[in-house]
Amino acid sequence: MARDNFATRLNAAVRDYGPLCVGIDPFFPSLPPELRERVVTRTEEAAAVGIFADSIIDAVEGIVGVLKFQVGYFEKYGAAGYVELESAVRRARNAGFVVIADAKRGDIGSTMKAYADFYMEVLDVDAVTLNPYMGSDVVKPFLPYAERGKGAFLLSRTSNAAAAELQEVSAREGHPYYLYLTERVLSWQQDLEPDNDGYLPFGIVAGATAPEEMALLRSRFPQLPMLVPGFGFQGGSAEDTAPAFDGNGTGAVVNSSRGIIYAFAGDSVPRDWREAISDAARSAQVALKNAANAS
Amino acid sequence: MARDNFATRLNAAVRDYGPLCVGIDPFFPSLPPELRERVVTRTEEAAAVGIFADSIIDAVEGIVGVLKFQVGYFEKYGAAGYVELESAVRRARNAGFVVIADAKRGDIGSTMKAYADFYMEVLDVDAVTLNPYMGSDVVKPFLPYAERGKGAFLLSRTSNAAAAELQEVSAREGHPYYLYLTERVLSWQQDLEPDNDGYLPFGIVAGATAPEEMALLRSRFPQLPMLVPGFGFQGGSAEDTAPAFDGNGTGAVVNSSRGIIYAFAGDSVPRDWREAISDAARSAQVALKNAANAS
Repeated sequence: MARDNFATRLNAAVRDYGPLCVGIDPFFPSLPPELRERVVTRTEEAAAVGIFADSIIDAVEGIVGVLKFQVGYFEKYGAAGYVELESAVRRARNAGFVVIADAKRGDIGSTMKAYADFYMEVLDVDAVTLNPYMGSDVVKPFLPYAERGKGAFLLSRTSNAAAAELQEVSAREGHPYYLYLTERVLSWQQDLEPDNDGYLPFGIVAGATAPEEMALLRSRFPQLPMLVPGFGFQGGSAEDTAPAFDGNGTGAVVNSSRGIIYAFAGDSVPRDWREAISDAARSAQVALKNAANAS
Repeated sequence: MARDNFATRLNAAVRDYGPLCVGIDPFFPSLPPELRERVVTRTEEAAAVGIFADSIIDAVEGIVGVLKFQVGYFEKYGAAGYVELESAVRRARNAGFVVIADAKRGDIGSTMKAYADFYMEVLDVDAVTLNPYMGSDVVKPFLPYAERGKGAFLLSRTSNAAAAELQEVSAREGHPYYLYLTERVLSWQQDLEPDNDGYLPFGIVAGATAPEEMALLRSRFPQLPMLVPGFGFQGGSAEDTAPAFDGNGTGAVVNSSRGIIYAFAGDSVPRDWREAISDAARSAQVALKNAANAS
């Protein structure tokens, strides 16, 4: 039997816990001091990063429904990093989280098949981020996974400072490139069935740092679930994320990485860093639920 | 002391050996039967892929100067694949090849710093392919490596079937998006010095399957070295690659993966598969030298 559409599962997690997606971007120099002690080699650094990732998963269990792993922070350590990534993703899946691998891969069809093997089979995540610049070849090897309840988020309007440079160029008169690209993302799914709420399993990345563009994307593409980065550390407020949601407070997950996982760094009164992470996730979840329901 | 500019080193390899870059895209089902025997587990598959990669390196030593590793075929096996990638890249570097990692990474600045750590420090390749859709943030963490003789190739007009979908959209009247994007690639290097031949260390990917677009790119951007995929298996002929070269037969390397590394597959008279790879590299090198010198 086919599993639920990825979008259905994502929206269920948003209904059950709220729209927060915790981003696991473990940067060694920012880890709690006790995890950095006695670390000398790169392999030890990778192991500390793995322990930190596991601790984040445990600290937010029951508070959030969606986790996003930034693959770059694990690939940094090569093979040693992938040992930790594979182990942390397994822990997250066993705990029942919806798991997104933030890989932003995009290549020719034969190579994308290899990437799909890793992300959809070996790592067995629920969704992966993809870069659509190379066209439909990027997404094709992932389409068959839709019936297994998996999906992807294609980059549309990203949250970084330099995003506008290449994404807001006019592709047609008054029609910026990221809109044109998003039309393609929709057309690549013409053979897939939307779920009961009208959502397709391959959504888009739309940054909270560009709320007007996000609002435009939500109104033009009600079928596409959104992964919203840029909330918190990158400058987007909870209110900025409101335009990403549909009228039911669903349709989007909002990622926060540094604002949650390094919440202990700003503590004036010392407390356990795991508690600081749990508390930050709880507060962000409340703020985002308010934004989602105000939309 | 600063090492030679990456472009200078790339062009030296083209002068010494010819423009062929051998692409190491090891796909297990296509490996020589003797390497597939008795392989059961994924880890054993990864090990066979590693042996094959090492054998390719040995078979083309003295025939070609540049190797490109397709990272996706190694990431397919997760940690086990990275063990093989790291080991094969070490072998290639020790043998004196110019080594390109075909990763097509592209993300926000902090994540690109992590990717730069891996590719430029841990793997220590000469160049990496990058996807510029997220703007200058993608390339910034790589710019400081220019003075250590390293570089990158940014996707411009790729070789795959679906490339035109998003790359040939008009960004301004009659000005396709890939040209607009390539102008940005040039501007991101405004603080870098060109080498004695006028080349900068961050070049572009321009597919042999679109020779007219490649010719346009070469004439508009004489400063940018080119990595040309799509020759051979993907359909581009040696003649199709001619427009990529400057008047001196340099300025571009032409990748061939499947046409070289699986050359043994079409053998009617059986011979050692390593010899078939060496022979295919020799013939491709001759055909490409002719094309480069005819330009």
